[in-house]
Amino acid sequence: MKIEITVQNMFFIFVIGTAGSGKSALTAAFEKWLATSELGVTVVNLDPGVEDPPYTSDVDIREYVDYGQIMHEFGLGPNGALVAALDMAISHIDDLKEEIIDYGRNYVLIDCPGQMELFAYRNSGPLLISSLKGNNPALSLYLLDANIVRTPPGYLSSMLLGISINIRFSLPQIGILSKSDLLSEEKVNEIISWSTQPFILQDALDITAEGMLKEYSSSILRVLEDIGSGSSVLPISSRQMEGMEILYGEIQRILAGGENYQTYE
Amino acid sequence: MKIEITVQNMFFIFVIGTAGSGKSALTAAFEKWLATSELGVTVVNLDPGVEDPPYTSDVDIREYVDYGQIMHEFGLGPNGALVAALDMAISHIDDLKEEIIDYGRNYVLIDCPGQMELFAYRNSGPLLISSLKGNNPALSLYLLDANIVRTPPGYLSSMLLGISINIRFSLPQIGILSKSDLLSEEKVNEIISWSTQPFILQDALDITAEGMLKEYSSSILRVLEDIGSGSSVLPISSRQMEGMEILYGEIQRILAGGENYQTYE
Repeated sequence: MKIEITVQNMFFIFVIGTAGSGKSALTAAFEKWLATSELGVTVVNLDPGVEDPPYTSDVDIREYVDYGQIMHEFGLGPNGALVAALDMAISHIDDLKEEIIDYGRNYVLIDCPGQMELFAYRNSGPLLISSLKGNNPALSLYLLDANIVRTPPGYLSSMLLGISINIRFSLPQIGILSKSDLLSEEKVNEIISWSTQPFILQDALDITAEGMLKEYSSSILRVLEDIGSGSSVLPISSRQMEGMEILYGEIQRILAGGENYQTYE
Repeated sequence: MKIEITVQNMFFIFVIGTAGSGKSALTAAFEKWLATSELGVTVVNLDPGVEDPPYTSDVDIREYVDYGQIMHEFGLGPNGALVAALDMAISHIDDLKEEIIDYGRNYVLIDCPGQMELFAYRNSGPLLISSLKGNNPALSLYLLDANIVRTPPGYLSSMLLGISINIRFSLPQIGILSKSDLLSEEKVNEIISWSTQPFILQDALDITAEGMLKEYSSSILRVLEDIGSGSSVLPISSRQMEGMEILYGEIQRILAGGENYQTYE
């Protein structure tokens, strides 16, 4: 007997991160993993400006707003057109949501616009996210770019950016070390140790940091420690399909009402 | 007698902020103010993708890298082309620097690329900034978007983003409340009070915040308090040419070796 999926059984997973951090690749890889594991997933593209994402979207913002036409019609550049497209998309939230509900699958995997600053630091982005998820359990996967977080200052600035975005979207957030195949295993383990044992990061900063960072690193680290509570960043390689099972476990833990979810509610 | 300006007398002022925060408008307005005040200023455009900035640049990255051609030649989208253009610009830093030195003016006002995430959170941006300034005194003007910082959570997330960027660029940083003419005088004063007296912000967050922000706001505020040390964000209206004199005074205080500069050194 088929169990009817009501909207209450739908879990929304928003994939966020700076341009080039690997959002679309992770969306494609994680969809593949979920499907192979026979878990129902609806893939949503929320980027009006994307040309050729590496997955086939079930629901697509481009069916409602035409980025190219907006650019042409209003004489806007790439940034302006993206901002306008996202503003216009707000009037189509009900349609997007209805499409998602009609699919009736448990997991809704949402690839957010490529340029985070045009999405997170404007009013339309947070509004799109909160309206789409409604009262359903939801979380975000925040992608940390392997090229930036390999150094202690780069890691710290990326984590602070993550907290800033966390405030904008008000979602439980999992930190993902994206494109981990670009790093050596040793480096990956070092970055994980920074996230779980901040004193290791403090030691590394004491040696390398200069200027304001040297002076304030312990104060900044305390915030990361408070908010992260020792939870690890998850190394993921979309290219090599590595880390998917652990990611799924972490998502389950949060969405099923694990302790992390409680602290965010 | 004309005093010869050596490179030691040059002060580099980098204008940074998210797309649409008003960087180019502030560059234009502040150049005008400096020129009217008979202070020598060289204006540098560092955005390869800008089409028609509201000022006449003395030195321009577009003379060295051709964004349109890069887009066409390599078949890149707007983001990819900007990233490639900034990477290519690195090989022209010496030329840019030489041009700036040849102008021989005291103030060098540098309008940074419109999309901060493609500049700050890649390796080329921090490298461009540190190479351009060399050993000269330098600082950044970090523009806070009036539309975002009007609410306590928006203010907090923007300030955290500012700290994250501060770590990337390692420059003394002045927080600017940009486009202040969009806000009422009352709202401007409220935002200033958040920056100088964090307990007022804490009270506001206690009332309105939810989720992780409610739980961790005091921890986050402590960092802002430590790093900001009670220094005020400066309200600026480029459109109405308001706030320029106070901005100039603050820049002087930092570049001339005032206490703020010492704490960042």
